[in-house]
Amino acid sequence: MKPRIRRSNIDRRALLKTLAVLPTLSGTLLTASAEAETAPPGGVLPSWNNGPAKQAIVDFVRATTDQASPKFVPPEERIATFDQDGTLWVEHPLYSQMIYCLDRVPVLAAEKPALKHVEPFKTVLSGNREAMAKFTMPDLEKIIVTTLTGMTTDEFDAEVKKWLATAKDPHWKRPYTELTYQPMLEVMNYLRANGYKTFIVTGFGQDFVRVYSQKVYDIPSEQVIGSALNTKYGYAKDGKPILIKEPKLMLNDNNAGKPEGIHLMIGRRPYAAFGNSTGDRQMLEYTKAGDGTRLSMIVLHDDAQREYAYGPAQGLPDTKVGTFTQALYDEAKKDDWTVISMKNDWKRIFAFE
Amino acid sequence: MKPRIRRSNIDRRALLKTLAVLPTLSGTLLTASAEAETAPPGGVLPSWNNGPAKQAIVDFVRATTDQASPKFVPPEERIATFDQDGTLWVEHPLYSQMIYCLDRVPVLAAEKPALKHVEPFKTVLSGNREAMAKFTMPDLEKIIVTTLTGMTTDEFDAEVKKWLATAKDPHWKRPYTELTYQPMLEVMNYLRANGYKTFIVTGFGQDFVRVYSQKVYDIPSEQVIGSALNTKYGYAKDGKPILIKEPKLMLNDNNAGKPEGIHLMIGRRPYAAFGNSTGDRQMLEYTKAGDGTRLSMIVLHDDAQREYAYGPAQGLPDTKVGTFTQALYDEAKKDDWTVISMKNDWKRIFAFE
Repeated sequence: MKPRIRRSNIDRRALLKTLAVLPTLSGTLLTASAEAETAPPGGVLPSWNNGPAKQAIVDFVRATTDQASPKFVPPEERIATFDQDGTLWVEHPLYSQMIYCLDRVPVLAAEKPALKHVEPFKTVLSGNREAMAKFTMPDLEKIIVTTLTGMTTDEFDAEVKKWLATAKDPHWKRPYTELTYQPMLEVMNYLRANGYKTFIVTGFGQDFVRVYSQKVYDIPSEQVIGSALNTKYGYAKDGKPILIKEPKLMLNDNNAGKPEGIHLMIGRRPYAAFGNSTGDRQMLEYTKAGDGTRLSMIVLHDDAQREYAYGPAQGLPDTKVGTFTQALYDEAKKDDWTVISMKNDWKRIFAFE
Repeated sequence: MKPRIRRSNIDRRALLKTLAVLPTLSGTLLTASAEAETAPPGGVLPSWNNGPAKQAIVDFVRATTDQASPKFVPPEERIATFDQDGTLWVEHPLYSQMIYCLDRVPVLAAEKPALKHVEPFKTVLSGNREAMAKFTMPDLEKIIVTTLTGMTTDEFDAEVKKWLATAKDPHWKRPYTELTYQPMLEVMNYLRANGYKTFIVTGFGQDFVRVYSQKVYDIPSEQVIGSALNTKYGYAKDGKPILIKEPKLMLNDNNAGKPEGIHLMIGRRPYAAFGNSTGDRQMLEYTKAGDGTRLSMIVLHDDAQREYAYGPAQGLPDTKVGTFTQALYDEAKKDDWTVISMKNDWKRIFAFE
């Protein structure tokens, strides 16, 4: 199977670094059950400290939903978009979907033993993390494409569901779906309570995120935009129509692909957008450049105590997962995006704390 | 500009026939104002005659929304999809968007005089309908691609709005947006009142339909799926982010492209689908093949008095616009899709009657 992915912003260095430190491919046992909470009794955004970030959100909602406001936005135009990895949930040390792909390799090898003798699958199966750390980008693409295609969309959904029910983040020892940021769940609820439609706009696969988006974020699958592989319509042996996931990238929902994907799937410019890395830059620019009051916010991972600290802004190390460069920080300041400091702006990070 | 459209179900013969009979490229003056009406006082679906089609809709809604029903569908899974041309509004004698493209030729030629000397634009400008009737498929694609690309998405929206405000259907002498079928607007309202999310799934351009979908169908742009050209993110001279429409087909939302597009944009199988031609076959099959109670309905244009009669089913002439073949009719009967007879099932066809 020859991968036909032509563009990708999956960062090879980040993946290699991470492969070298991951304790095991995944855990087992726990059941995913993180759910978005409803509006709390203690006022809006209770997990946010008072400060410019919280104020920016409250001011934005007031300006765009008060009928008397000159910046009032009709309900049907209230669109808010959220990057997922690093913005709504933990992306360190490795994107959850990449871990899913690696975890699928032994399962696939059991079904197709020939894979055991073919690179890069042989190395993944060996568990030799030093060897994995030498994977090239084509190696990683082979893993992604092989583990995400060749099955029906229903089969894929069932596989992801099964994985989510047992896989655990090695650091937190919890299901990945519990590693959502409580303050961001509150922002989504607050916006929805004010007539906004919330969308996820992820660089990773939309089919993957759609499996849990309703349960975890209260966002239906049609409001999840992400990178998408082709599907091909056909018929199963019993004559029933099926859709097969094909190894051809249709939408790379990263960088310029984010506003392009937003146009494809939503057809209008968001009024609010939330991101955390260079992959979100164009979405944040595009949002902020619209008429009226627009909100672009960017999460800075500066909390080594409670989560992680990374990104070169403010001298933090650049790990290449969720890159937040100095140039991006400068653009945020210049274009009036609001930087969210996890350390200073968030009272609580996870619901389980 | 070389068109890169690779597949298309725009039927050349139908276009040619039609070009030969169209009285003028478009009319002027009237303003588009068709609006979906809200639930009427006289019971559900007042523009429908009692009969198997109306009964199938009412039974479907009862079975899927009554909590006590074994076929109950949770609200977040209630998805209904509608083809547009021939299902929600008139498609004869020529699809509205094709008329838009032809009407754009003189406008473009005024901006770029070189076009006046290049075929097929020269022929369109001559108004020689016999010559237009000899257009090849590449000729028609050149017209489509040239008139729909090379501008920003905002410019395109403005152009379509302007056209809709003045163009008139030559037969009805009314804006195209008034030529919606009242019974189908009632079905959409009835489904929405019962928790269904309604989507348009059109073979024509989604950017075109999105301009008027909220006003005409009460459907927001993010619930319009259609054929889509690439857009490219970039910056205007003043530095503002823009999206340019490019001559590259990203999604051909016809035939197998309809379930594929539904998966891309919605991510789950509809519970109800409505179509009227072979281009809708796979969407209707895919919908009907799902678990539980599913509704697939197909509109038969058999009313030469009040609208048009076409399609070879029941011996009607095959005009190739909105082809409803005998094979499709046989599949409808075999797979338990419900055929809607405009003549027998619809009490009223248009809101203006």
